[in-house]
Amino acid sequence: MSHERTMDLIRQMVSEREWSQFHTPENLAKSISIESGELLESFQWGGEADIDEVQSELADVLTYCFLLADALGLDVDEIVQTKLGKTHEKYPVNLAKGRSTKYDRL
Amino acid sequence: MSHERTMDLIRQMVSEREWSQFHTPENLAKSISIESGELLESFQWGGEADIDEVQSELADVLTYCFLLADALGLDVDEIVQTKLGKTHEKYPVNLAKGRSTKYDRL
Amino acid sequence: MSHERTMDLIRQMVSEREWSQFHTPENLAKSISIESGELLESFQWGGEADIDEVQSELADVLTYCFLLADALGLDVDEIVQTKLGKTHEKYPVNLAKGRSTKYDRL
Amino acid sequence: MSHERTMDLIRQMVSEREWSQFHTPENLAKSISIESGELLESFQWGGEADIDEVQSELADVLTYCFLLADALGLDVDEIVQTKLGKTHEKYPVNLAKGRSTKYDRL
Repeated sequence: MSHERTMDLIRQMVSEREWSQFHTPENLAKSISIESGELLESFQWGGEADIDEVQSELADVLTYCFLLADALGLDVDEIVQTKLGKTHEKYPVNLAKGRSTKYDRL
Repeated sequence: MSHERTMDLIRQMVSEREWSQFHTPENLAKSISIESGELLESFQWGGEADIDEVQSELADVLTYCFLLADALGLDVDEIVQTKLGKTHEKYPVNLAKGRSTKYDRL
Repeated sequence: MSHERTMDLIRQMVSEREWSQFHTPENLAKSISIESGELLESFQWGGEADIDEVQSELADVLTYCFLLADALGLDVDEIVQTKLGKTHEKYPVNLAKGRSTKYDRL
Repeated sequence: MSHERTMDLIRQMVSEREWSQFHTPENLAKSISIESGELLESFQWGGEADIDEVQSELADVLTYCFLLADALGLDVDEIVQTKLGKTHEKYPVNLAKGRSTKYDRL
């Protein structure tokens, strides 16, 4: 499915409900944390989770991420690709291969 | 930019570093919460934030969201659009217009 | 060690630095989430964690919790004991014993 | 109220329900993040919050913090006081006074 279509639907939902007044970058950042906590709740006591719940909560995290990107005039694929370039530098393959160590301890 | 290209680049980065062994759904859900906290740190003391920091941290949240969706065989635009349909039902325009009230209190 | 002594030291640190202007309940709630994310980072890739890091990050979460309680005129032991009473009711021993199920699904 | 009494009541609740099997440090760290998100939800759209909700959610965060400290053999007041000593060093009064700047940018 097209991301542009997703953004049109999100903007329409917000516009119809006059919710943009609540969607400051700060409130959206809080919302991303709140929904991330709900997603994590699916894994609170272990690795087994209800896939429908995970899908639903992940969708909420993504929706607020998309709204924050939109509010700041950012394209989600562009900023992820830009950050990937930096991750490549911070985690050289020869040092990071097979290790979960943080870059500043590699 | 194309989301498929983003996914190819993410998968390549993970594969080259043999990181998929760490990317259980549970660990990815934790990672989304951790990165959401870093994003929120840009707004810890108020609404003014460094746009470059926000972009960088939002990219991290998105990357882990994309990885979790990928691990579960989910398409991010599809699950967001599916969830939007449910939000439409839980927040009817006539009740939710101009209000930030949660659906169970509308 | 005495909790009252802890509170005296926290209040002194804040007062000397004139930080109370930043410590609105909202900012403290954000700070608790941010520090919780840093604590969780110790467990990002599994159950093994550096005890010194965990202790340090847990202390940060607690400090902001203590500050929020103080800002609202709440005693931390009193509110935890009050909530325990409610948990007793929501999770009757005969239903909850040996199960991590959430109360609304017991 | 005495913190020792709080700990006795928490340990009794956990013991009666045979919940200690779920309370690994990792699961408790996740729980702290999850409950912090619920606390933050009280402030999702601004600084006005229901004090009863805040009290209840803050109590949940604290309960899991107390459980994690207990699981690791740590005293909450001791670790907070220890960390305060480090904060004093990282944020000298003359540099930090009236500023919310992070220590590495002071």
